[in-house]
Amino acid sequence: VNTIKVAILGQGAWGRALAKLVAANGHQVCPWSYRQGDDLQACLSGCDLAISAISMKGVVSLATQLQGLALPQHMILVTATKGLDAFTTYTPSQIFRAQLPSHHPIAVLSGPNLSLEIEQGLPAATVVASIDLAVAAQVQQVIAADNFRVYTCLDPLGAELGGTLKNVVAIAVGVCDGLNLGFNARAALITRALPEVIRIGTKLGAQIETFFGLSGLGDMLATCTSPLSRNYRVGYGLAQGKPLTTILEELGGTAEGVNTAHVVMTIAEREAIAVPIATQVHNLLKGTITPQAAVEALMERDLKAESGLLY
Amino acid sequence: VNTIKVAILGQGAWGRALAKLVAANGHQVCPWSYRQGDDLQACLSGCDLAISAISMKGVVSLATQLQGLALPQHMILVTATKGLDAFTTYTPSQIFRAQLPSHHPIAVLSGPNLSLEIEQGLPAATVVASIDLAVAAQVQQVIAADNFRVYTCLDPLGAELGGTLKNVVAIAVGVCDGLNLGFNARAALITRALPEVIRIGTKLGAQIETFFGLSGLGDMLATCTSPLSRNYRVGYGLAQGKPLTTILEELGGTAEGVNTAHVVMTIAEREAIAVPIATQVHNLLKGTITPQAAVEALMERDLKAESGLLY
Repeated sequence: VNTIKVAILGQGAWGRALAKLVAANGHQVCPWSYRQGDDLQACLSGCDLAISAISMKGVVSLATQLQGLALPQHMILVTATKGLDAFTTYTPSQIFRAQLPSHHPIAVLSGPNLSLEIEQGLPAATVVASIDLAVAAQVQQVIAADNFRVYTCLDPLGAELGGTLKNVVAIAVGVCDGLNLGFNARAALITRALPEVIRIGTKLGAQIETFFGLSGLGDMLATCTSPLSRNYRVGYGLAQGKPLTTILEELGGTAEGVNTAHVVMTIAEREAIAVPIATQVHNLLKGTITPQAAVEALMERDLKAESGLLY
Repeated sequence: VNTIKVAILGQGAWGRALAKLVAANGHQVCPWSYRQGDDLQACLSGCDLAISAISMKGVVSLATQLQGLALPQHMILVTATKGLDAFTTYTPSQIFRAQLPSHHPIAVLSGPNLSLEIEQGLPAATVVASIDLAVAAQVQQVIAADNFRVYTCLDPLGAELGGTLKNVVAIAVGVCDGLNLGFNARAALITRALPEVIRIGTKLGAQIETFFGLSGLGDMLATCTSPLSRNYRVGYGLAQGKPLTTILEELGGTAEGVNTAHVVMTIAEREAIAVPIATQVHNLLKGTITPQAAVEALMERDLKAESGLLY
């Protein structure tokens, strides 16, 4: 094994799970946490790879800090954060790209990866995406394991948007399940959500095929059918009539889909994209519609033919 | 309402649920059951529409009977049966098409429709597919309800194959859940199953888009994530080490995915299609592999790139 030094930025559940995978492959892990006041420059010194698993709200600040540091010349940055910046509507990889010198390759890690299950050693698969296949393959070697299959992909934006936009869908599915509408309704909702995500993603420059893979459909399925998902639990709570503030207090933190729903509405208006599911989630989060009325609005869409679903 | 006379062939759970929908729209329902020895000619007399929801094993016999009868001149036949004929590898609509005079239009009804939920009045959506849009639209009018949205589609074979092939996937997912592999593994399995279904379906002449809709992905999701599904329960039981005969006894009847898995292997060999998931299900049903080994074989596939997943 060619041992390298890998910085893991962010020490939440996902950061810790990734650190474990990297260490299990014999690499040296340098953990960094904003909360613990760690020295970022010292952490990154000598690192060939930095994996960022920080929360969305810290991404702009981290990218700005990185710009001011002396980074190892060939360091690859992998972002595993899911979310959109409210001000620019950028994804994490777009934010890092705007701040990092162009000789630092950027990759995206995204897939159906509930971190609790990864930590337990249950089998999972994920996607590492970069516009440079060699970069994706390098990252693949560092984190892959028998029980953690890593597939490469050339569409980082698509991989990232799949993981991000599905959080809005998870809220909608949580509402559906919280209202006890059954498996048929849930399946129909997820099926009709995928083309909505594809409409947004392709308009922003992602490739349609990516959304049918692990980082698109795969991540949507894991998040939308598991009570482990924070965003799903937001929707579930709303369906039970709980106020959003109460739900977020009980979750003990943020659920990224709440912010993402607002950003999606901004994008949809700017780009003139029909986003019926995000619209109802947005209305529900604002409190201008009841869960029952939101679901009814989705069921009553006057679509008669399935053709034209995707394009 | 323009009231018509509608024959419902087959009085299982799905036939009864469809009869209820048709009757609720003010139409006259003529139920027919092979088991009860009903007179088929008398049932079909004066019917503008016949909906067949019989079990797969009765389809060839019903099609043969229909050939010998005096049918109302413009009668439409809708088939709602999911399965493949072991001898010809035909779908129900292909079997009916081969036996019925060509002036009788044939349509396919297929979607995420667990019949128990439909009977309970829970919301659901489905697809009615025909090569003639006017035919699909006519059927749509007869069965649609506020809580049962019907979408039209021009690819009856695709709609039918989605509903049929997903039963094999449901067995695989049942195994995965029975082994407690978690939500990540299940999501990855379903995501990788969809292109397998698409490879088979498109090779047989169906359109790729159909598999992303309600009768494809939608039905797969409902069947693969619900303990209500018989095929899912077959896989779940196998994972617990139960013999297939015991599982089928406990289910009190057949699970169509067992037969479909065998037919899929015949088609895959004939058409030279890679079907890794169906292959492992087939091996498992034959008893030549353990559930654990079947899952490992799927996880260990040496696929490194996601590109080329669909085509």
